Amino acid sequence: MPTDVEIAQAHTLEPITTIADRAGIPEQSLIPYGTTKAKIDITTTPTETTGKLVLVTGISPTPAGEGKSTVLIGLADAIRSTGRSAIVAIREPSLGPVMGIKGGAAGGGYSQIVPMEDINLHFTGDFHAITAANNTLAAMIDNHIHQGNQLGIDPRRVSWQRCVDVNDRSLRHVVTGLGGKAHGVPAETGFTITAASEIMAVLCLATDLADLADRISRMVVAQTYDGKPVTAGDVNAQGALTALLKDAINPNLVQTLGGTPAFVHGGPFANIAHGCNSLIATRTALAHADVVLTEGGFGSDLGAEKFFDIKARAGDLDVSAVVIVATIRSLKYNGGLARDQLTTENLDALQQGVANLARHVENVRKFGAEPVVALNSFTSDTDVEKQWLADWAQTNNITLVPCDVWAHGGAGATNLADAVLTTIDAATPTHPLYDPADGLEANITTIARELYHATSVEFTKQARTDLAYLAENGWDTLPVCISKTQYSFSDDPTLLGAAEGHVLHVRQLLPRIGAGFIVALTGNVMTMPGLPKKPAAEGIAVSDGGKITGLF
Amino acid sequence: MPTDVEIAQAHTLEPITTIADRAGIPEQSLIPYGTTKAKIDITTTPTETTGKLVLVTGISPTPAGEGKSTVLIGLADAIRSTGRSAIVAIREPSLGPVMGIKGGAAGGGYSQIVPMEDINLHFTGDFHAITAANNTLAAMIDNHIHQGNQLGIDPRRVSWQRCVDVNDRSLRHVVTGLGGKAHGVPAETGFTITAASEIMAVLCLATDLADLADRISRMVVAQTYDGKPVTAGDVNAQGALTALLKDAINPNLVQTLGGTPAFVHGGPFANIAHGCNSLIATRTALAHADVVLTEGGFGSDLGAEKFFDIKARAGDLDVSAVVIVATIRSLKYNGGLARDQLTTENLDALQQGVANLARHVENVRKFGAEPVVALNSFTSDTDVEKQWLADWAQTNNITLVPCDVWAHGGAGATNLADAVLTTIDAATPTHPLYDPADGLEANITTIARELYHATSVEFTKQARTDLAYLAENGWDTLPVCISKTQYSFSDDPTLLGAAEGHVLHVRQLLPRIGAGFIVALTGNVMTMPGLPKKPAAEGIAVSDGGKITGLF
Repeated sequence: MPTDVEIAQAHTLEPITTIADRAGIPEQSLIPYGTTKAKIDITTTPTETTGKLVLVTGISPTPAGEGKSTVLIGLADAIRSTGRSAIVAIREPSLGPVMGIKGGAAGGGYSQIVPMEDINLHFTGDFHAITAANNTLAAMIDNHIHQGNQLGIDPRRVSWQRCVDVNDRSLRHVVTGLGGKAHGVPAETGFTITAASEIMAVLCLATDLADLADRISRMVVAQTYDGKPVTAGDVNAQGALTALLKDAINPNLVQTLGGTPAFVHGGPFANIAHGCNSLIATRTALAHADVVLTEGGFGSDLGAEKFFDIKARAGDLDVSAVVIVATIRSLKYNGGLARDQLTTENLDALQQGVANLARHVENVRKFGAEPVVALNSFTSDTDVEKQWLADWAQTNNITLVPCDVWAHGGAGATNLADAVLTTIDAATPTHPLYDPADGLEANITTIARELYHATSVEFTKQARTDLAYLAENGWDTLPVCISKTQYSFSDDPTLLGAAEGHVLHVRQLLPRIGAGFIVALTGNVMTMPGLPKKPAAEGIAVSDGGKITGLF
Repeated sequence: MPTDVEIAQAHTLEPITTIADRAGIPEQSLIPYGTTKAKIDITTTPTETTGKLVLVTGISPTPAGEGKSTVLIGLADAIRSTGRSAIVAIREPSLGPVMGIKGGAAGGGYSQIVPMEDINLHFTGDFHAITAANNTLAAMIDNHIHQGNQLGIDPRRVSWQRCVDVNDRSLRHVVTGLGGKAHGVPAETGFTITAASEIMAVLCLATDLADLADRISRMVVAQTYDGKPVTAGDVNAQGALTALLKDAINPNLVQTLGGTPAFVHGGPFANIAHGCNSLIATRTALAHADVVLTEGGFGSDLGAEKFFDIKARAGDLDVSAVVIVATIRSLKYNGGLARDQLTTENLDALQQGVANLARHVENVRKFGAEPVVALNSFTSDTDVEKQWLADWAQTNNITLVPCDVWAHGGAGATNLADAVLTTIDAATPTHPLYDPADGLEANITTIARELYHATSVEFTKQARTDLAYLAENGWDTLPVCISKTQYSFSDDPTLLGAAEGHVLHVRQLLPRIGAGFIVALTGNVMTMPGLPKKPAAEGIAVSDGGKITGLF
């Protein structure tokens, strides 16, 4: 069995000009990065969104992996082979994890985005631009304090952190500004990985350069000694940061192995942020294809909810079909089966775990969409399991279609494509779950009850203080971005399946005013990963001809 | 008077394909980054260096600025107008300082490299790739210690620092790894700016990808508990870092305002490193033009010395002409005149300060080259001053040619071009100053006596310890890279003119085994700049059309 990188390297890519032509993007809007990657100049492309949007989400993720991106890519190739034009619009991978644990982030098998090495390394430099912008702002804040602190920033309440796109646990908690008077003001702080920077969320929700600059200027970076918010605009950073991001705002164009145009652009964390690719890429894609396939990170409780309540709301997007990716092995894991038992037939576990799928179907319906469940096939799935699941779906009036995109690419998703196109053609408008005007407390409670099946929400003392601070500043009617474990509908990652009757604990609320949402923390959020005992980096090499080996 | 950025933005650039064609670079070797920037695939371009190399250096730098790059660029345009083909091969600017104090790093006036905004911001991402590689290595070292420390690395003797391409004084001295057992091992460390990373020096001296990987694996990053060196190869980082640098190793092609092809590639610090653009770019340029113009950072005591003793030696380069850039105002500054007096006629100060120029001429002759002095004209230069200087040069058998490239581009350097071409045609081979086999102590003393006119060299106790450690590991016969103030021939920045009779103090010696030299510190070296009270960043903005204003 060839590896992902072997399949990708054996493939002959079409010139990016051909792909652009396929998407109807004129040559003068194309900014080439080599011959197989390009950026699209958003100032010269059409903006009228005539395409239909397909949102791909999944059941609750498990360590076994569900192949959400892989299904999305194969489905796009399959839809294109029906004669409708299609464009993929997904997130770009973070470099840090590439050096940590093996695993591509651009699909797999014969459903991949290429050139996969470039996409997984520097790509077109978007993450680096965000890192530079993030750290320039940090330097400007600390410099302001060092140079007289006219704004009265409390050095103990600088919330803006530096970032790197590296898995580096040693940077989680640091003290900076040591060494004496000439070297800044000592401060306890930390680094996040670049994907967790608010600038990433801002870039992914901005509609153009002017909106980007406005959003940047609104980002809250600190508090004054008397508790007033300090913004990036207060330290006059918005112009420089926008200049640093002027190329990064343009969507990246690449291709699937099936030759479908793919916009791979932006990659915010799906817990501390909203977890969707850039709004600009999605809208530009919708102006250039009949069908656009995009994703929401994690399951319906996180990625899809944030897609509807944050991204679709910000960008005035309607969703014509929702696909929920499920696998038999992951349902069995959700049914309580141990990870090393998943390839053995176990109907009991499947019957237990299917409750997780049922909940995600129910959740998606709450946004006004009737989902299609894509059953991503694995060779270990048994006929008995497959038949039981098919019967279960039929009994419960759920459209469930098997696909086999890893091994067959688009050809493995023909039936799935038909089902999705049928759904698109019958679609009625979708809607968000709540009205931000109802306030943070009410809306968090709505999400917790409706999607998580929690009985109630408990706010810690800190969260209550945060709520008051947010209300004081008029930020309590912004949408909420709940940071919760992806493994459970509750805030306890060990409660698999379809947890209910639990209490959601909100520990802290963080203003992300540039992004335009409030993050509600319900557990410990790791915003800086570490490297494992044997990092993937140790196995990577470059041949004399420049070919990369050991990447995955 | 238009500003540099206004001149650059008013210019209509030629397509990069036209520029490549002018340099004889075939289309299949061209990797476009947009339509006016490209990288050159070094694996498919000729390597036979048939061109003649011109090294541009300067008198001792002053706060008034001498315009070394500006003269180099104008001279290249002038040489090309004589009918000989020419290519510029210079360093790429660092992003950090762009946000600090206003001032472009790609020439000035009508002698600029364009697109200047791109070149001064992210360009083709080389610096970001180096930052990522540098910080990936740091994470791998700390992760090794955290995960059991099989190599026995002493956490107190990890010399490898992290870097960012931001002017951020608060990162000079930091403590990392705080927060408890899960978050790494506490360590006192610091960040440098990216240009000061050894990886930058390595990239600029590597001959190909294989050599790059070898050099990376040799970089010393720490010592074990029993004092043995630990290398990047010991933590198996060379493959991943080479993968991260596989694009960065390819030279960048842009153009001068006069349409001359320009390789702008690599930018190591000129004190903690050797201060020259990449060897690969210089050699590739020499395979594609009659005349290649390159630079050595600072004056003959630093940039030119390191060019001959480190870069030319490593890359088997011969220099056919050396240009020393001088200005009347800087000579007056070197003659003791205050900075705010430089635009007033002052023959006394000029007569005092000319000793600085005389010393640089003498120094260049010690490498076997007869220099051409380029007098970079300013409107404040008076006829009396100019005449006196011309007479002085004639009396002392020095070729001195005025030029006015800021206002007139190549047309302002016609006579200078003639003088340089005459020198090239009469050139005899140049040579380094010393033989590395003579050992570090002897060679530092040679440089100090011959070029600095020091009477002796004093090594501190620490430097003596370092010498012993270096000898123990067989590194005492590597070339030396002296880190010294650029303002004086001594290690005291206030001794202007042509200091002599002083003692050079070597305080510390740092192994840079990947780069292939030993850094000798003679003073405090600032490897992380800070932002000024009013950073240039505050004045930068982007118009809705994407045009950057306030950059310089």
